[in-house]
Amino acid sequence: MGINLSNFLTSQSKNRKMGEFQDLDHLDGISISTVSANLYNTNRDDLVMFYFREGANFASVYTQSKIISENIKWNLNQKTKKIFSLLVNTRNANSFTGDQGYQSLQILAEEISNELTKKQKEDEEYPEKIKTKNIIFGCTGTIGEKFPVEKIKSKIPELIKNIRYTQNKYIWMKAALGIMTTDTQPKMAMEHCTIGTTQIKIYGIAKGSGMIYPNMATTLGYIFTDADISNDVLNKLLKKNVESTFNAISCDGDTSTNDMITIFSTGKAKNKTIVNISDKKLKYFNEALKNVMLNLAKRVVSDGEGASKFITIKIFKSKTEQEAKQIAFSIANSSLVKTAIAGEDPNWGRIIMALGKSGAEINLKKMSIKFGDIYIIKNGKLSNQYNEKETAQYMKNINIEMNINVASGNKNFTAYTMDFTKKYVEINSDYRS
Amino acid sequence: MGINLSNFLTSQSKNRKMGEFQDLDHLDGISISTVSANLYNTNRDDLVMFYFREGANFASVYTQSKIISENIKWNLNQKTKKIFSLLVNTRNANSFTGDQGYQSLQILAEEISNELTKKQKEDEEYPEKIKTKNIIFGCTGTIGEKFPVEKIKSKIPELIKNIRYTQNKYIWMKAALGIMTTDTQPKMAMEHCTIGTTQIKIYGIAKGSGMIYPNMATTLGYIFTDADISNDVLNKLLKKNVESTFNAISCDGDTSTNDMITIFSTGKAKNKTIVNISDKKLKYFNEALKNVMLNLAKRVVSDGEGASKFITIKIFKSKTEQEAKQIAFSIANSSLVKTAIAGEDPNWGRIIMALGKSGAEINLKKMSIKFGDIYIIKNGKLSNQYNEKETAQYMKNINIEMNINVASGNKNFTAYTMDFTKKYVEINSDYRS
Repeated sequence: MGINLSNFLTSQSKNRKMGEFQDLDHLDGISISTVSANLYNTNRDDLVMFYFREGANFASVYTQSKIISENIKWNLNQKTKKIFSLLVNTRNANSFTGDQGYQSLQILAEEISNELTKKQKEDEEYPEKIKTKNIIFGCTGTIGEKFPVEKIKSKIPELIKNIRYTQNKYIWMKAALGIMTTDTQPKMAMEHCTIGTTQIKIYGIAKGSGMIYPNMATTLGYIFTDADISNDVLNKLLKKNVESTFNAISCDGDTSTNDMITIFSTGKAKNKTIVNISDKKLKYFNEALKNVMLNLAKRVVSDGEGASKFITIKIFKSKTEQEAKQIAFSIANSSLVKTAIAGEDPNWGRIIMALGKSGAEINLKKMSIKFGDIYIIKNGKLSNQYNEKETAQYMKNINIEMNINVASGNKNFTAYTMDFTKKYVEINSDYRS
Repeated sequence: MGINLSNFLTSQSKNRKMGEFQDLDHLDGISISTVSANLYNTNRDDLVMFYFREGANFASVYTQSKIISENIKWNLNQKTKKIFSLLVNTRNANSFTGDQGYQSLQILAEEISNELTKKQKEDEEYPEKIKTKNIIFGCTGTIGEKFPVEKIKSKIPELIKNIRYTQNKYIWMKAALGIMTTDTQPKMAMEHCTIGTTQIKIYGIAKGSGMIYPNMATTLGYIFTDADISNDVLNKLLKKNVESTFNAISCDGDTSTNDMITIFSTGKAKNKTIVNISDKKLKYFNEALKNVMLNLAKRVVSDGEGASKFITIKIFKSKTEQEAKQIAFSIANSSLVKTAIAGEDPNWGRIIMALGKSGAEINLKKMSIKFGDIYIIKNGKLSNQYNEKETAQYMKNINIEMNINVASGNKNFTAYTMDFTKKYVEINSDYRS
């Protein structure tokens, strides 16, 4: 499963070939190591440590669910300006695990901070005392199972021993693989840009939408840059770009207790620190960041369970951006629309249904619906040019685009989703054990 | 497909056996006739006329979609105190059909009112002049296709010729069958009650949730009583009871442009006209009406496409009824919950996820979750008594009940839904032609 994205990922780095995978290489100030704590009983890597030897500025966005996992609570509680390590585990979401889950993270944070402080002393280069508040966690997997703290703790010395100060494409691949649950493909993206005259790298990895064993599609996204940007500006950049990227995707309309997107900046590119969101030097960085986030988000959708089609839903000329988003997701989350697309059926009546139930304002006399470039509805009526055969032919594409003009304002929104196949039901109705 | 409901339909008429079908018989003041206009090219009945020879008081609730079908627009435009006829057609939803669709109804209303006026003169009993405003329509089927006005119009004389003044169970069955699209079972329900000392009948038929050819699950529900109740009181009774019945069901979270529930009262039971909603004599009628509506609504869910389980989701002790409803539907509409139930998997982590994403207030330290009588979560923690094997055994039932106490207030709501099977995807991704 998983759709080949190479034809429709975008990059602003003009001369770089976009393939299924992008090769991430060295990014100064970050070290990655992976290990198996045998959480799946298969010896696959299930722990990934990101280590920032001089610390990193950072910003996060978390799930909007009212029930949040223990690691999200931990992350929210740490008041610090620098992160020294992010530890991600799979197989156990540490959600609905109560005190045991939270105290486990305290134990792990103590172990990690002690071991990293020891390492820094040994290396004699970075004699910083690392504290538990400098450590954050990403967890994904099953909800409600006891958190396997001992198994994880016992592997921390090995994780730290494996740390190397130069990264290559293999270690990034291992990291992207190590955070997967039942994803079928690792998800990586990168961009180069400049801040002023300084060359900057932005790398990202993500996971999401495999749900056979874990209980839901946790999305984890981690973005790394060598730019020097303050926490406040990182936070504003992340919030701004998450709306049109990770918050613009939907596989099945369900929301995890563990969703987490974090950006880290190591500052090693040595640009003059950016402390103001209106700084004009951010222009290219902002665009490149959006591309990295959008590419990662698209990779999550394209690996959606059972997906056979990648669907882009563009809403134009809505009254407010909120209403444009409502319409886009009313379509993206409709089982009837998604099953029709799986069946390659240009069943536009279901689009009309989804438009109606969205509750948003629609100018019925002027609205239009296009599948790709083919007009279905024009000025509120079935287009004279509409030809079902031609449209049915269009539906055979893997990449389906719906362009919907609701003619009630001037705001737009684009959502990304996948189709709904028998395979999805098969995967999600299989008994866990 | 379709689940046998006989074990869990409720009736307040104690000594009446509840079977798969309830036998509706004569209800004074109403005549039914059916005919095939060959709209499906299979000669099945596709037109059903309900004729109230002395007129009927009535009240309706319609779809909340922003895009409504032409017949709903027609019905909303008729300012009248009495309805003489309801004509229901299948195969064509008369939605997104524009002026052609609306003018077709004008043509049909003229034909029906002329023919019925003629009939009344011939019968010499009810010399009322019937007008177009006394006629309403129910339509269900495909969206956006030209409305087949000529085919329907040509059958009106035959429909009227078929009218008999005594009804029996066969004609009710024909009516329930005649309004079906791809439903697999006709849906009927009945109750007897009293208003003061007068014996009253309440009969109802409904259709919903077959969607192979039509584009969505239009719900149509028609309720008939011989009680004498004013339009204003009928309206209040219908609005009040629709919340916990037809508005408490969900098959796949999609909303039709054609949904319509109407109640008609012929007054032939000759109770003293009820003109006040607070009239204490309404107590039994109100309960019986709710039972009829709930039974019809449950029959719609149980005939949901591909359904193999009937799921009742009871939310207790929520802050507001609105929040209780939000939680219930967050669970009822979750693809992950519905596929887990299809797989007979007691995957309670997905319930936690759906609770969290509902956005409603939940007391995490006191909440509880029961599947049937089996405690899963008690006081916010996995119950000591939880036994996965026993729970997995429970999931093999056709009728699954979830009892969820969110411990944040004192309001309750119950929703009804079905599971999500491969069959659903198969039905809805089949190309229409």
